[in-house]
Amino acid sequence: MIAAPPKPAWIAVDWGTSNLRAWAMDAAGEVLDHAESDTGMAGLTPPNFEPALLRIIQHWLGDGTTPVIACGMVGARQGWTEAPYRAAPCLARTDAPVRITAQDTRLAVYLLPGVSQESPADVMRGEETQIAGYLAQNPNFDGILCLPGTHSKWVHVSAGEIVSFRTFMTGELFALLGSKSVLRHSVDTGDWDDDAFADALQTALSRPETLAAHLFALRAEHLLHDQAPRVGRARLSGLLIGVELAAAKPYWLGQPVVLIGPARLSQTYAAALAAQGVGPGIADASAMTRAGLTAAYTQLKATA
Amino acid sequence: MIAAPPKPAWIAVDWGTSNLRAWAMDAAGEVLDHAESDTGMAGLTPPNFEPALLRIIQHWLGDGTTPVIACGMVGARQGWTEAPYRAAPCLARTDAPVRITAQDTRLAVYLLPGVSQESPADVMRGEETQIAGYLAQNPNFDGILCLPGTHSKWVHVSAGEIVSFRTFMTGELFALLGSKSVLRHSVDTGDWDDDAFADALQTALSRPETLAAHLFALRAEHLLHDQAPRVGRARLSGLLIGVELAAAKPYWLGQPVVLIGPARLSQTYAAALAAQGVGPGIADASAMTRAGLTAAYTQLKATA
Repeated sequence: MIAAPPKPAWIAVDWGTSNLRAWAMDAAGEVLDHAESDTGMAGLTPPNFEPALLRIIQHWLGDGTTPVIACGMVGARQGWTEAPYRAAPCLARTDAPVRITAQDTRLAVYLLPGVSQESPADVMRGEETQIAGYLAQNPNFDGILCLPGTHSKWVHVSAGEIVSFRTFMTGELFALLGSKSVLRHSVDTGDWDDDAFADALQTALSRPETLAAHLFALRAEHLLHDQAPRVGRARLSGLLIGVELAAAKPYWLGQPVVLIGPARLSQTYAAALAAQGVGPGIADASAMTRAGLTAAYTQLKATA
Repeated sequence: MIAAPPKPAWIAVDWGTSNLRAWAMDAAGEVLDHAESDTGMAGLTPPNFEPALLRIIQHWLGDGTTPVIACGMVGARQGWTEAPYRAAPCLARTDAPVRITAQDTRLAVYLLPGVSQESPADVMRGEETQIAGYLAQNPNFDGILCLPGTHSKWVHVSAGEIVSFRTFMTGELFALLGSKSVLRHSVDTGDWDDDAFADALQTALSRPETLAAHLFALRAEHLLHDQAPRVGRARLSGLLIGVELAAAKPYWLGQPVVLIGPARLSQTYAAALAAQGVGPGIADASAMTRAGLTAAYTQLKATA
């Protein structure tokens, strides 16, 4: 016998550039069920968002209206509907959901706005929800949240506000160099070498301006000295994270730091920071996203 | 009436990763004719090199044997036949051509070796021929040759030797970020803005460690402040060249510098160096390649 699909109180949605993930949630913020697909924002035009969402959530819908709260690139200019940015400094809370139009009357869809910064110009979409989730669970946190990923963010949080932030293209550079550049043959492995990572990290941290030369040396070391791809891969990561840490030093130096990211990447950043004498906390990115969406749902209900 | 194809004394070949270029040459090093194709090294396996070459040069061949002298990635491990590197420090001359086997008896094919450096590990294939060409025309040159391109080289030349060199992936990073990354929408133009280039160059030169943050700011400035793509494109170039100049400072500071590259890119590097008080000379890359190949032919004839 097949269990009846759960009828959630609301649905939490994390809709990024490449993926769509949804959770059937009860009123207390517990997960009843989970669904996902690869219909990310990048592959959709506005009329296709609702069908893509329905495809993975419609077995959860009942006769009434179910609130759906979504964060991420779904609210970008090229997304379902643009959800304007909130301008930093701003509250580190998901308290300004934008109700958008859905064709299916069973859906009440809300998008969470991203956060922008005037100068230096910067934007985030999705990370603000993880930050709000972390603050919902740690309301007195004062310090630095680092969200490593394709576009890593360093965020100064104080007195419940996002004070300032800065984005680094570290993850995207790693992906491009590792798969599309002349280096791809020199880093072509899933393996890893801790010592090579640590060495490259220190090199880049102490002389960040040498990055572009050290990158080509990965290929030359492979050609001339048969450097193993696991060494090349770990060095590439160490160089790029080292350059990021050099630039983000005003954020992390002498500050409490918490990493919010995918588990393995957070471990890599934690090792890099530990080598600088910083012992960061770690929070799971996916859990923080749900906590931020839950905070938005709770407030929506309270003000309804 | 159609002119009879020239019968060259020898054929000069520049065979890189993406292109094959050949010149019909007379004994004095003058160009009689020119041919090219997009059959670069990257798209060929060893048995396909000779047919790809014959396709563009066979109308130049007479009854006897014609020497063909080639430089570039054709001599790489994945090329026609590997031409081992000469190890720097070494003579800045093309005096060690490697005769390889051709099926067609009308061809006597020679490949020019690249140059390697033990530490920091580095390699070049093709640039050594341009360097030799410049030295053939300027035998007393002592200083720095900069060869901007996909993989820019900075080369210290003294007393007729390549003393040391360093490669920067600047051109490849520009191509990847400009066409494959999230920045592509923010730099999507052929236009250019001189002031934006100069400003980004100085930013990167003075604080090279902020590169990864300034890269993402190109997108944020486009999203938030409608920064024009020509500004984004010039800034992207300025940031990457600025980081390269920061790392290459020990090469160019207080030294005579000559740029050997494609005309437009050399102009860009010249502007960047001029802003640092360096007034570089400029030599045409293609002419220097032919001069280097001609020097190899002249020596080959003298020792034959």
